[in-house]
Amino acid sequence: MKLWDKGQASTSDIVDQFTVGQDRVLDLQIAEYDLRASKAHARMLNSIDILSDEEAKSIITELNRLLDDVESSDFTIEEDFEDVHSKIEYELTQKLGETGKKIHSGRSRNDQVLVCLHLYAKDQIDEIKQLIKNLFEELTELSEKHKEVIIPGYTHMQVAMPSSFGLWFGAYAESLIDDLYMLNAAYKIGDQNPLGSAAGYGSSLPLNRSKTTELLNFSTLKFNSVAAQMSRGRLEKSISYALSSVAGTLSKMAMDVCLFMNQNFDFLSFPDELTTGSSIMPHKKNPDVFELIRAKCNSIQNLPNELTLITNNLPNGYHRDFQLLKEKLFPAVQNLKECLDISRFMFQHVEVNENVIDDPKYDYLFSVEEVNRKVMQNTPFREAYREVGQAIAEGTFDPDKELKHTHEGSIGNLCTDQIREKFKEAFNS
Amino acid sequence: MKLWDKGQASTSDIVDQFTVGQDRVLDLQIAEYDLRASKAHARMLNSIDILSDEEAKSIITELNRLLDDVESSDFTIEEDFEDVHSKIEYELTQKLGETGKKIHSGRSRNDQVLVCLHLYAKDQIDEIKQLIKNLFEELTELSEKHKEVIIPGYTHMQVAMPSSFGLWFGAYAESLIDDLYMLNAAYKIGDQNPLGSAAGYGSSLPLNRSKTTELLNFSTLKFNSVAAQMSRGRLEKSISYALSSVAGTLSKMAMDVCLFMNQNFDFLSFPDELTTGSSIMPHKKNPDVFELIRAKCNSIQNLPNELTLITNNLPNGYHRDFQLLKEKLFPAVQNLKECLDISRFMFQHVEVNENVIDDPKYDYLFSVEEVNRKVMQNTPFREAYREVGQAIAEGTFDPDKELKHTHEGSIGNLCTDQIREKFKEAFNS
Amino acid sequence: MKLWDKGQASTSDIVDQFTVGQDRVLDLQIAEYDLRASKAHARMLNSIDILSDEEAKSIITELNRLLDDVESSDFTIEEDFEDVHSKIEYELTQKLGETGKKIHSGRSRNDQVLVCLHLYAKDQIDEIKQLIKNLFEELTELSEKHKEVIIPGYTHMQVAMPSSFGLWFGAYAESLIDDLYMLNAAYKIGDQNPLGSAAGYGSSLPLNRSKTTELLNFSTLKFNSVAAQMSRGRLEKSISYALSSVAGTLSKMAMDVCLFMNQNFDFLSFPDELTTGSSIMPHKKNPDVFELIRAKCNSIQNLPNELTLITNNLPNGYHRDFQLLKEKLFPAVQNLKECLDISRFMFQHVEVNENVIDDPKYDYLFSVEEVNRKVMQNTPFREAYREVGQAIAEGTFDPDKELKHTHEGSIGNLCTDQIREKFKEAFNS
Amino acid sequence: MKLWDKGQASTSDIVDQFTVGQDRVLDLQIAEYDLRASKAHARMLNSIDILSDEEAKSIITELNRLLDDVESSDFTIEEDFEDVHSKIEYELTQKLGETGKKIHSGRSRNDQVLVCLHLYAKDQIDEIKQLIKNLFEELTELSEKHKEVIIPGYTHMQVAMPSSFGLWFGAYAESLIDDLYMLNAAYKIGDQNPLGSAAGYGSSLPLNRSKTTELLNFSTLKFNSVAAQMSRGRLEKSISYALSSVAGTLSKMAMDVCLFMNQNFDFLSFPDELTTGSSIMPHKKNPDVFELIRAKCNSIQNLPNELTLITNNLPNGYHRDFQLLKEKLFPAVQNLKECLDISRFMFQHVEVNENVIDDPKYDYLFSVEEVNRKVMQNTPFREAYREVGQAIAEGTFDPDKELKHTHEGSIGNLCTDQIREKFKEAFNS
Repeated sequence: MKLWDKGQASTSDIVDQFTVGQDRVLDLQIAEYDLRASKAHARMLNSIDILSDEEAKSIITELNRLLDDVESSDFTIEEDFEDVHSKIEYELTQKLGETGKKIHSGRSRNDQVLVCLHLYAKDQIDEIKQLIKNLFEELTELSEKHKEVIIPGYTHMQVAMPSSFGLWFGAYAESLIDDLYMLNAAYKIGDQNPLGSAAGYGSSLPLNRSKTTELLNFSTLKFNSVAAQMSRGRLEKSISYALSSVAGTLSKMAMDVCLFMNQNFDFLSFPDELTTGSSIMPHKKNPDVFELIRAKCNSIQNLPNELTLITNNLPNGYHRDFQLLKEKLFPAVQNLKECLDISRFMFQHVEVNENVIDDPKYDYLFSVEEVNRKVMQNTPFREAYREVGQAIAEGTFDPDKELKHTHEGSIGNLCTDQIREKFKEAFNS
Repeated sequence: MKLWDKGQASTSDIVDQFTVGQDRVLDLQIAEYDLRASKAHARMLNSIDILSDEEAKSIITELNRLLDDVESSDFTIEEDFEDVHSKIEYELTQKLGETGKKIHSGRSRNDQVLVCLHLYAKDQIDEIKQLIKNLFEELTELSEKHKEVIIPGYTHMQVAMPSSFGLWFGAYAESLIDDLYMLNAAYKIGDQNPLGSAAGYGSSLPLNRSKTTELLNFSTLKFNSVAAQMSRGRLEKSISYALSSVAGTLSKMAMDVCLFMNQNFDFLSFPDELTTGSSIMPHKKNPDVFELIRAKCNSIQNLPNELTLITNNLPNGYHRDFQLLKEKLFPAVQNLKECLDISRFMFQHVEVNENVIDDPKYDYLFSVEEVNRKVMQNTPFREAYREVGQAIAEGTFDPDKELKHTHEGSIGNLCTDQIREKFKEAFNS
Repeated sequence: MKLWDKGQASTSDIVDQFTVGQDRVLDLQIAEYDLRASKAHARMLNSIDILSDEEAKSIITELNRLLDDVESSDFTIEEDFEDVHSKIEYELTQKLGETGKKIHSGRSRNDQVLVCLHLYAKDQIDEIKQLIKNLFEELTELSEKHKEVIIPGYTHMQVAMPSSFGLWFGAYAESLIDDLYMLNAAYKIGDQNPLGSAAGYGSSLPLNRSKTTELLNFSTLKFNSVAAQMSRGRLEKSISYALSSVAGTLSKMAMDVCLFMNQNFDFLSFPDELTTGSSIMPHKKNPDVFELIRAKCNSIQNLPNELTLITNNLPNGYHRDFQLLKEKLFPAVQNLKECLDISRFMFQHVEVNENVIDDPKYDYLFSVEEVNRKVMQNTPFREAYREVGQAIAEGTFDPDKELKHTHEGSIGNLCTDQIREKFKEAFNS
Repeated sequence: MKLWDKGQASTSDIVDQFTVGQDRVLDLQIAEYDLRASKAHARMLNSIDILSDEEAKSIITELNRLLDDVESSDFTIEEDFEDVHSKIEYELTQKLGETGKKIHSGRSRNDQVLVCLHLYAKDQIDEIKQLIKNLFEELTELSEKHKEVIIPGYTHMQVAMPSSFGLWFGAYAESLIDDLYMLNAAYKIGDQNPLGSAAGYGSSLPLNRSKTTELLNFSTLKFNSVAAQMSRGRLEKSISYALSSVAGTLSKMAMDVCLFMNQNFDFLSFPDELTTGSSIMPHKKNPDVFELIRAKCNSIQNLPNELTLITNNLPNGYHRDFQLLKEKLFPAVQNLKECLDISRFMFQHVEVNENVIDDPKYDYLFSVEEVNRKVMQNTPFREAYREVGQAIAEGTFDPDKELKHTHEGSIGNLCTDQIREKFKEAFNS
């Protein structure tokens, strides 16, 4: 059944097959939202007397039944339907006849997709934030647990200054707070009810959009109907910026892990059952999980660009091009959630090499300490720098590996409590 | 003068030329911030007794003098210096000898660049928000002024439903609010003091980072030194997401304008002196300004991807690659500000065609109105849809062009006040 | 069965599920190539006495049987196998015991994937070229058929100069030749046998790589083993540039079609059954097919960037990240082929509006003709330009719509034969 | 002077400043091509009697004089001119009066830009190929020189199998051949004369486009005028794919070098004067040149995407947006040439660590050798793999480091001559 079947010519099979895309599969992820939005729309139509009390009640009963199906995974979208919206309308019409047809008064499919995506965005962002919280907690615990373990810090990939596992784990924890800020922005963008813009230019029916806003728990409306319509693409892009931000954090972390597991570094390892082997090299313990976190997160970082390419330079108004947005966005959301979850899982099993710093190739790490020691004894910085440089050049530099870093955010003062406080604030806002 | 000159081998000229890049030019845009941050650093060093009161005072006096130079555009970075930081240190050392050298205690150039970029981010975001406000006000005024002028609304680029200039101008106004949310997120990410992370792993000096945080008016610290270091690249990307968001709004708006100025649409025009002609077609009035807004904003939308490509898959720690970030970010910020400003300027002169809708090719626009009218008279929607479809197919459809849209965000109820309120809230948060 | 199962710890289920990805599904597309390459490898091993004649024969018989399965779509990769390579090795070992195990001598899975992708690349490029040929032929026919139909040509989206459907259809035909050049380059890059690089650093077995090169019909070897290994990612990117090039042509063509079908233009149309309707606007005939061609081709144009993001800044050597490349590349190839095919299908049914030019709004089109007429009568160009401009400004311009364009590639001289000749040459090289 | 000044309203200064862009600076790079193309156009106009012999002669004399200025760097584009084309026309008109004005007969500025870009493309591609040749020769020499030096080869960044500097240097040499294939494709795309398409729809003048094709040394015409016009953007994208391909090779090579210079690897080094130091760490020798090669090449790899974003979804016909293409393309070409040149320069001074392999952490490298040795002694591969794996697990594995790799492209048989031959063929085709 096609919604647009006017009893005249039916579109050819070739066109059909080309245009249907993956909606039937993808739409299972938004069935719940379409049902919830339909309930709100029905209640609103009732409040403006387009649906009678009885009609509204029977429609809502039916929608609740379908919601039960969704919850128990019994909801399906058969080949006869092009998307979840036509499937649901079909069910209503089958059960309720003329009454079922009235649910579509004052709305269009664009409208329905828009409100579904807004509800989806809010839910998914909440889930992602929770997964970030889990990872954050694991990382801060590891930071505290291994705060005494010194490792080299690199600049230009050259051995530079003393660092520590306390700093390293803690750094990724604190970085996740920035990602929360981006997620919160995307949430705010999604938290504006678009329902009621019909095909993007409003309706002549006296819709009560404040009512659906309240029923669907949106903070405000996207007032202007054209603005609501334009949120298609924009919303997905906003989400994609936030996903990208998180993915950027995970990707860099994964790169560090792969490097640290390399035998030339040997800072970190994982139990055998969490690494993989090679088909021809029996000694290999490969960091496949982190390689795939890196790759998947790099792919997610591509999402803003892909969404932009698909939507860019299209004048305002709905275009069928937007159909592709769902099949780009949904898997990215899913992949990011999996990457967050498995990152936490892996770190629960991480093994830290506590003796990294004993290797004499890291002695030069302590040269800046020596410079600073001289500065504290009143040698001007540039002078101290010159003296230590000369000692190194002459091979007479003898490092004192005892570290006395005390300032906020240094090896000896990780400020984990303050970071946790900042996280909490960002999480709850 | 190179900071790293150890009195030994000097880097070859070829390497020099290849590596210096555009820092000397670009750094003029952050000279002010380096001076302000240096003042805060000096005061802090004084508070922990690395600088005496007298030393701190003389350094601050000198930095203030240089700030005056910046303000009066007398500040220059000569060919002898590789960047603004070495220039300023040179000035201090020239004037104050040993005292001048002490300013570099407990910090590194990475540190300096980081804090400059954070200060720059905050300032620029504030400026961009102000320019958005100006444009928003122009657009809402135009929306109100032309709210009676009906134009066709399109879906699939097909004539679809009645729209209006009230809706069209207002839609871009309201969309700018979403951009504010992204800018606010980027601002929050920039509003965390990174100063004191030294080369990215903290310092053995007893720095008081809370002090510089307060002096530089940051809301909080980026506590963890490695997190502070990792904000390089991350901060720029966060800003780029926000710039992209704004640019996406302007680019779509510009596409609409170019289409609306096309003779086949003829919805909008601008005075002759704001359009350009052709070298061989005397009748042309080309929308070059909007074409260039579109192109520049599309280029800005590429920024997140470019920054990602440059920084991606680099393990944590400073890399010289980051040098390129400034030359990508700064022009994008500048271009976006110009695009915002000239958009407002152009719209101050826009001329609206009030008779668009009289053309009979737009009659079908009113078919949904007819459907809705039947629905209000209790015909089920699908039935009404079928009847009107048939009338159109048979050529008997006669539109009633009187519109009675009343719901929030529809042609007859633009909700400009509520949109203004929402803008104000976003602007001030 | 995992190839790397060493009889010790098995990787955990969580890791398993995260890392297996979509290989089982995607690999069906390269099963044929792995079998062909395995046959060549077996023959080569036989030629260097690692396989006896009998062993080689039994292996090849078995591989041929599996090839039959692939051809009849009976080949499956069950849940027990992580990819096509382990499935095939399992089949050989099941049937042939110790002999089956020997097929893996002197190669690795990376090796196998590499050679599969090279064979896939060559085949797919050939198929794409054939589909381009079909479309090219349709477009040149349409160009000739409608060469008399004048339409406006636009610059800056402003009515500019007379064009024709002959020019318009022919332009996309000729543009496809440039795409062939890119495809040919990608083909050449794929046409170098990588088999024999083992895990990327060669083998101590005395492999005869020239033999497999000949057996697999490659033009040459990728000689250096590390270069062969590095072709992973590079090859995919090279293909993606070529796909992007074609996609860019189709995307622009689709944009033109959507615009030309818009009621404000009304240059082109398609039969009802090839367009789609609207759920609430009975009069709509939407160009969904071309919108989706545009969107899919814009997504394909994103592929080079996505592949670059995934592979960039990884040092040489295999990384598990590369697993994602297949799931990005294969659907893009498939989508491009479908877009090419349906473009040709749609154009077979295109209906051209022969009276576009009668609309008086296009009169100014002929102003340059008038300028040129004056030039031919010896008025200097700038003078002629000024005179016609003045006539237009004064409303006295009266166009002569008879066109006498004669030069190569102009309305009156489309050079279709020369374009066909150029296509043929590019197609065959 | 503006070409479009019709003696009526002049565009406002704001618009002027916004639209002029960087043309005056960038166009110096194509002045030579505009002059050469103008000469060809003049000769052709003479051949069809639009210019008399005398007029043509005087125009060509003047253009030659300007070419001399370009060669001696005396050619400038003053603030009064918006681009090189108006400057040259002004010069001709100043010197030759009415005759000078005639040069513009039958062409437009779009036309001029198009032909300039095609000539520029061909020249630049030739220069890039030459620089690639220089680098290729350096790399093959290094490959031969250090072919005995064994280094570890990595997969998953895990120590995997023996490799060598012979393989490593040679791999990048051979990879450059693939880049030549892409450059050759871009060259072919550029080697089609677009001149004569006027504003993109041809001219009513009887232009002889074959004549300019021959005079400008193009292999063929872009026949169809609309196809010629559409080459704007397409050509730049095609070049950008080829630039990206080369940049991808250099970027990966630079990543390897940075890693190999890291103290944990210590495979490679460069003389002090080719590395840089740190402002606070006296022992650092930073690989800034390679970091910047990496960053610049990653930025170049972004070019295809940026050009696509700027041009995408624009219907056919010239748009002012295209102005930005030059300012994206020209610096990318320049940067790539510099990166190629300095790569060669750096490698001329590279110092190789000949004793890498003595470190016992690399012993496991030789496990596959042991497996293969067993295979050659007739143990089935999977059996041999299991035995060696067990020896490693039990700590009884004792490597034999003598390598006997003999097959094409392996450590002992680099096939440098064949690679040189393949390069030569690609270079000359």
